[in-house]
Amino acid sequence: MARLLRKQSLKSGMPPGSIINVGSLLTPTTMEYIRYNDSSIKILDANDLSVFRDMPDAVDWIHIQGLSDTDRIIQICQKLKVHFVLIEDIFNDNQRAKTEDLEDGVFVVLKFPVFDEEEGHLHMEQASMILSGNMVISFQSSQEPIFTPLKDRLYKAAGKIRKLQADYLLYALCDLVVDSYFAVLESIDDTIEALEEKLVGDPTQETLQKIYHLKQETIVLRRAVWPMREAVGTLNRTDNPIVNESTHIYLRDLYDHTIQVIDTVETFRDMISGMLDMYLTSISNKMNEVMKVLTIFASIFIPLTFLAGVYGMNFHFLPELGWKWAYPVWWGVTIIVGLAMLAYFKRKNWL
Amino acid sequence: MARLLRKQSLKSGMPPGSIINVGSLLTPTTMEYIRYNDSSIKILDANDLSVFRDMPDAVDWIHIQGLSDTDRIIQICQKLKVHFVLIEDIFNDNQRAKTEDLEDGVFVVLKFPVFDEEEGHLHMEQASMILSGNMVISFQSSQEPIFTPLKDRLYKAAGKIRKLQADYLLYALCDLVVDSYFAVLESIDDTIEALEEKLVGDPTQETLQKIYHLKQETIVLRRAVWPMREAVGTLNRTDNPIVNESTHIYLRDLYDHTIQVIDTVETFRDMISGMLDMYLTSISNKMNEVMKVLTIFASIFIPLTFLAGVYGMNFHFLPELGWKWAYPVWWGVTIIVGLAMLAYFKRKNWL
Amino acid sequence: MARLLRKQSLKSGMPPGSIINVGSLLTPTTMEYIRYNDSSIKILDANDLSVFRDMPDAVDWIHIQGLSDTDRIIQICQKLKVHFVLIEDIFNDNQRAKTEDLEDGVFVVLKFPVFDEEEGHLHMEQASMILSGNMVISFQSSQEPIFTPLKDRLYKAAGKIRKLQADYLLYALCDLVVDSYFAVLESIDDTIEALEEKLVGDPTQETLQKIYHLKQETIVLRRAVWPMREAVGTLNRTDNPIVNESTHIYLRDLYDHTIQVIDTVETFRDMISGMLDMYLTSISNKMNEVMKVLTIFASIFIPLTFLAGVYGMNFHFLPELGWKWAYPVWWGVTIIVGLAMLAYFKRKNWL
Amino acid sequence: MARLLRKQSLKSGMPPGSIINVGSLLTPTTMEYIRYNDSSIKILDANDLSVFRDMPDAVDWIHIQGLSDTDRIIQICQKLKVHFVLIEDIFNDNQRAKTEDLEDGVFVVLKFPVFDEEEGHLHMEQASMILSGNMVISFQSSQEPIFTPLKDRLYKAAGKIRKLQADYLLYALCDLVVDSYFAVLESIDDTIEALEEKLVGDPTQETLQKIYHLKQETIVLRRAVWPMREAVGTLNRTDNPIVNESTHIYLRDLYDHTIQVIDTVETFRDMISGMLDMYLTSISNKMNEVMKVLTIFASIFIPLTFLAGVYGMNFHFLPELGWKWAYPVWWGVTIIVGLAMLAYFKRKNWL
Amino acid sequence: MARLLRKQSLKSGMPPGSIINVGSLLTPTTMEYIRYNDSSIKILDANDLSVFRDMPDAVDWIHIQGLSDTDRIIQICQKLKVHFVLIEDIFNDNQRAKTEDLEDGVFVVLKFPVFDEEEGHLHMEQASMILSGNMVISFQSSQEPIFTPLKDRLYKAAGKIRKLQADYLLYALCDLVVDSYFAVLESIDDTIEALEEKLVGDPTQETLQKIYHLKQETIVLRRAVWPMREAVGTLNRTDNPIVNESTHIYLRDLYDHTIQVIDTVETFRDMISGMLDMYLTSISNKMNEVMKVLTIFASIFIPLTFLAGVYGMNFHFLPELGWKWAYPVWWGVTIIVGLAMLAYFKRKNWL
Repeated sequence: MARLLRKQSLKSGMPPGSIINVGSLLTPTTMEYIRYNDSSIKILDANDLSVFRDMPDAVDWIHIQGLSDTDRIIQICQKLKVHFVLIEDIFNDNQRAKTEDLEDGVFVVLKFPVFDEEEGHLHMEQASMILSGNMVISFQSSQEPIFTPLKDRLYKAAGKIRKLQADYLLYALCDLVVDSYFAVLESIDDTIEALEEKLVGDPTQETLQKIYHLKQETIVLRRAVWPMREAVGTLNRTDNPIVNESTHIYLRDLYDHTIQVIDTVETFRDMISGMLDMYLTSISNKMNEVMKVLTIFASIFIPLTFLAGVYGMNFHFLPELGWKWAYPVWWGVTIIVGLAMLAYFKRKNWL
Repeated sequence: MARLLRKQSLKSGMPPGSIINVGSLLTPTTMEYIRYNDSSIKILDANDLSVFRDMPDAVDWIHIQGLSDTDRIIQICQKLKVHFVLIEDIFNDNQRAKTEDLEDGVFVVLKFPVFDEEEGHLHMEQASMILSGNMVISFQSSQEPIFTPLKDRLYKAAGKIRKLQADYLLYALCDLVVDSYFAVLESIDDTIEALEEKLVGDPTQETLQKIYHLKQETIVLRRAVWPMREAVGTLNRTDNPIVNESTHIYLRDLYDHTIQVIDTVETFRDMISGMLDMYLTSISNKMNEVMKVLTIFASIFIPLTFLAGVYGMNFHFLPELGWKWAYPVWWGVTIIVGLAMLAYFKRKNWL
Repeated sequence: MARLLRKQSLKSGMPPGSIINVGSLLTPTTMEYIRYNDSSIKILDANDLSVFRDMPDAVDWIHIQGLSDTDRIIQICQKLKVHFVLIEDIFNDNQRAKTEDLEDGVFVVLKFPVFDEEEGHLHMEQASMILSGNMVISFQSSQEPIFTPLKDRLYKAAGKIRKLQADYLLYALCDLVVDSYFAVLESIDDTIEALEEKLVGDPTQETLQKIYHLKQETIVLRRAVWPMREAVGTLNRTDNPIVNESTHIYLRDLYDHTIQVIDTVETFRDMISGMLDMYLTSISNKMNEVMKVLTIFASIFIPLTFLAGVYGMNFHFLPELGWKWAYPVWWGVTIIVGLAMLAYFKRKNWL
Repeated sequence: MARLLRKQSLKSGMPPGSIINVGSLLTPTTMEYIRYNDSSIKILDANDLSVFRDMPDAVDWIHIQGLSDTDRIIQICQKLKVHFVLIEDIFNDNQRAKTEDLEDGVFVVLKFPVFDEEEGHLHMEQASMILSGNMVISFQSSQEPIFTPLKDRLYKAAGKIRKLQADYLLYALCDLVVDSYFAVLESIDDTIEALEEKLVGDPTQETLQKIYHLKQETIVLRRAVWPMREAVGTLNRTDNPIVNESTHIYLRDLYDHTIQVIDTVETFRDMISGMLDMYLTSISNKMNEVMKVLTIFASIFIPLTFLAGVYGMNFHFLPELGWKWAYPVWWGVTIIVGLAMLAYFKRKNWL
Repeated sequence: MARLLRKQSLKSGMPPGSIINVGSLLTPTTMEYIRYNDSSIKILDANDLSVFRDMPDAVDWIHIQGLSDTDRIIQICQKLKVHFVLIEDIFNDNQRAKTEDLEDGVFVVLKFPVFDEEEGHLHMEQASMILSGNMVISFQSSQEPIFTPLKDRLYKAAGKIRKLQADYLLYALCDLVVDSYFAVLESIDDTIEALEEKLVGDPTQETLQKIYHLKQETIVLRRAVWPMREAVGTLNRTDNPIVNESTHIYLRDLYDHTIQVIDTVETFRDMISGMLDMYLTSISNKMNEVMKVLTIFASIFIPLTFLAGVYGMNFHFLPELGWKWAYPVWWGVTIIVGLAMLAYFKRKNWL
């Protein structure tokens, strides 16, 4: 398992609002500044935010990927009058998903799952978005190309995105984040199906470890997913005038998808729990089978060995030894005892 | 188990509202257009939606079965001014049950259970319904003849359906969906009863697998059933004028039935959980019995075999061997040791 | 266990509101019509509901026991303008407890537990009551004499019932239903106490089955009892003018008792759960004891038997055989090995 | 375990409001009537409730201990116009904690735990209090001297009690009841600590029974404690003018303590649950150890015994028997086989 | 484990509001009185609270560490008109976290975790804060230097603290308390990671005890953390004018962090629960392996030993003994029997 927490405790005792980069410092900061309206789209210089309003009804999208260049990001945020506490949230990788309804905008933090192929486990990445005026600024701590499909749609003018305002852009970003859960959920679904087949066939210690691994992953997902419900719900219910009436049907749909993600995670939790129970009970069942085999063998042959031992004794006066039919009689007795034992186990339903 | 999710992740990155047929593409689309009022009923051409209002107070019901002909369905929906996001929901087979209160109508999505005889497991099908004006359009992804009884009632003018408005038709459709759960619940009830008898008699590994299978099925049912509570509840509480006052007593009854389904699923969950506990404890109990048999046999005969072994030794100076009463005394000692062991196990309550 | 559900699926596809007698058809219908006021009481003909108002301020109570005569019951209900959906509820034996606040009355469905001596398990019976004007109509599917004490009180004019209105009669009926749970709860309490004694003494497979049986019964009770909370709560909070202000203190008390029933069922659930855990752990504990006995015997005597076997070998050149003190020395070694093993097990705290 | 329920079912079918003494009939009734104000305090005759108002601003406290003298208690209650339903609650020992906001007063029922030294288990006692005008009447079914400290404070005029009204007296009584839980909780805390030490050391069947006993006690406590939350919460939120504004800070504090009791009980529940899991897992662990010892001994010596058995056979033509180095070679093989087994078990980490 | 409760029961029966020092009496009381504004900061004499208002817009912070000097603390509190009930809460070490909205101020009690290096377990310490006018008084029962970083920031004028009012000081104190949880959570996170590695490798009884210890610690944390949610939530939602509008964004952030702490504790709980299940199942799995080894050895060699025993018998007439090929044939039979057993176990998948 990956660690659940990044070292936030470093911040203990710092003035509230002080920025410490608890996320990865290794991802270099890149900025993209796209301005578009229905008819045209162009790329601006992210360092010169003053070049405003040269395109009628234009939507501005600044996307900042990688948060290592703390100073420059803080500078931009301050230029856009983002509150210190929110800047802190952008850098805090342990932040829960949340929506903050600001006076003149909306601030959204969401988490999305990334499957780390190398280490073989899930971890959560963070995406923060600020909607202010007709501009959206989005922040992402990692290099995961989660928003690339949106850029393509913007350039191709696919769907309605170029015709609508910045609030729709914010929705589209959130929608990509929520959709990213489905790929992970489907892969879990596949793993569950594969594990169930093994469970019915011949479960091993490795099967157990995979179930356990899956369970812990579901716990991590669950922790990310529940706060998202509240965050998307708040966004859905907002009466902030910056969110147009016509966008609300999309936000409701987004909320639906979020609930669907939560439902699925909870269902997986129940299923995996059931698999663990099934595994444990299967093992007990098998041990019972093993015990029966041992008991049958031991209970039949230990008395017989005793019988053999009796006539292996060297007492000088052991009359049976000299009897003519002793040996065949002995075999008779032995076979009868053996068969009686078998009958006894048969009656006990052990055979 | 069937997969829980159909491949929704294909949609990741598509413009929101883009239609991807996540349900089965193999079911051909068939459309039925029924118009009826109290006195007459006729079948119209589903391709020509413009033939309106030739019958006073008529209710229109368009039923679309199989969603493979995406273009035609989208076309019809657009003609009826269904919002893009709702069209997307109709095609999304992973959609949760929900009721959307529209300005001029009601949109309902429900799931219903279908038992796949071939593969031996449950899966969920989706039925979507739009009530708009005096028309209901219903969509269903599979060929399951769930709404056939309603058609019969319409033709036979059974009950009050021909005398009432389209809102009652919507209720009647929803009622069929909710009723379809009872057949499944009763079959689970039968299975539970059969399994309990086996549990008390002689549970096997197969019993365990059946219990496990039942448990996972209940989890799938549960996932479908809880959102239905909210969907039917919203329908029940709606103050949309399109739903007549007199229909509300039926909707309340529908809500009651929904809660009853949920109650029953939850009760099954508890019962199956109890069965698993009982199974595990039974196995432990049986293993205990097996262990006792083994221990009794081993503990009695292993010491006796040792005693026999002692006098099977070939030491030249082994005085007991020459004693006259050695052999009978040996038997005496052996029998006393054996009886002492039996008494010990008797006192321990193992016999 | 009895089945949880009666065959409701027969109704799938019937027009909503169609009456199918899902309860037992075997109980013949009997009707009683009692009219009383403070000063007098008389029995009327239940078939002639038109004989109204011959007694000032009289309360009418029609009690219908056994629902097999469907037609007659429907006829009476329709004469009293009971809605079709409610008539359906009266006949639907799977109905949850509920209170329906009607325009001019109150409709209450409650379940009560009946212990079936013959089959040795609990099942739930249904009682429905309609309060309308100064009349109460009560329906009961079985012959269980649950309301007999009330009739006695009416005839004897015990308590205040003859002085009060029909709403108090409704309360008195509900109170009898809720009180009927206490007898069952007390019998479960007794069983729990008896089982606990066995659990501490010598639990057997039979003890397990009794605990399991109790658990499943509690699950069935629980399913009946939670909806009752809502039903009685709705009755308690109703502002229907048909319920007098002075009756509310009784209804609050009724609600208290209902909560008490729920609390007790939940507490039993917890206790029985604890008993199952205790049982399983006890069994593990005992198996451990059995294993220790086996291990001690086997581990002591198997090596000793080996030692005896060594000198039972027939090698021609086996020098020890000829030594003078070989036999006593062998016993010495044997006893020392045996004692060492005992000391080892002593140190391991197995003795 | 003590029974959870006292025989309430005796009441089934009695007129609602009829008094049946379900509590212990053996405790004789004693009454105390104390009247006090800031400057003086005196004891009055509890049988003569008419001697009112001879002391300015006086608070009256009637404390009735032992409920066997039903008639006299009912008489007093009726003189004070206590509703029949409340009188019934006072006598009903199975009553849940509750607060009833009356028109001209407050009625509170609380439960408190009493540890029965003789029988070694907890049971719950009931205290009921009626605040009406400037008078508090308190009822208690047992002889437990729970309110004695308050009497001392009244006589000593300790704290502010003599300066304040009857609502503060009610609070002080409730506070004593809530405080009485802490002694029990602390004793459970001690027992948990002692059991944990045993659990880590050498858990026995007795440890298990103590944990189980503790668990069932916590369940009983929990059942008593949750309704208290609602009862004290209602008292806390009441806007009844009989409760002075200045008393509310005390009631809030009382509510805090109640929540603290609930929190602690729930924490104990979790802890005891953890202890049971730990116990079960420990037992499995130990059984594993036992099994390993058995397996090691048996797996080493059974093959060796076989080897000894081979050369104990009496075949006439058994060439090895005559070989010169046969015996030392046999020992060599035996020791090598034994060591190989040990190495195998070592590699399996069983040693 | 440390005790959960400090001896509160000593207070039973004391007048409500009477101060008993249930916390540690061993920590000597020290007081610090800091007055600061934007431009200057100075230390005042904590015994002379009358020296007010010599600095414009100054914020006063009195920090009292160690509560043993009860009288002096009560005296100061009374001078500042703190209600008796709140003083009691300050001294009651079992107090839950809570926020009390006073008429002219705010009273906050929080708990923070301290890891006791010596005894190796967590315990909870208490910090109480009163905001009144432009003054904050903070109380802390132990010597834990939790607020030291804040003093440093005040002296260094780091962040905005010196520019803002007392409500921000209260926030900063609460923030330090909430942040102190993260260090503990991260250490638990580390421990979980380390234990998981052991769990996958070779779990021992010690691993179990560590998991158990962790579980009980999480339970203790959980008990402290949930009430904090309510306390910080109340603070967040307060409309007390003493809390400035601009401070609310900080309080919202504080609330977010609190929820994050709760989420993490709950996630740990789930994870540790999963670890315990995994442990138990692993043990069962291993026991199964052990059993198989035993069964294979015993089932192969016990029959063979019997075969050897047969021909070790001393019957005079045992014809096989004299046969020429008896010995090789015997070996043949023995080896075939042995191989047959191996094949049987192979087919059963035990090898």
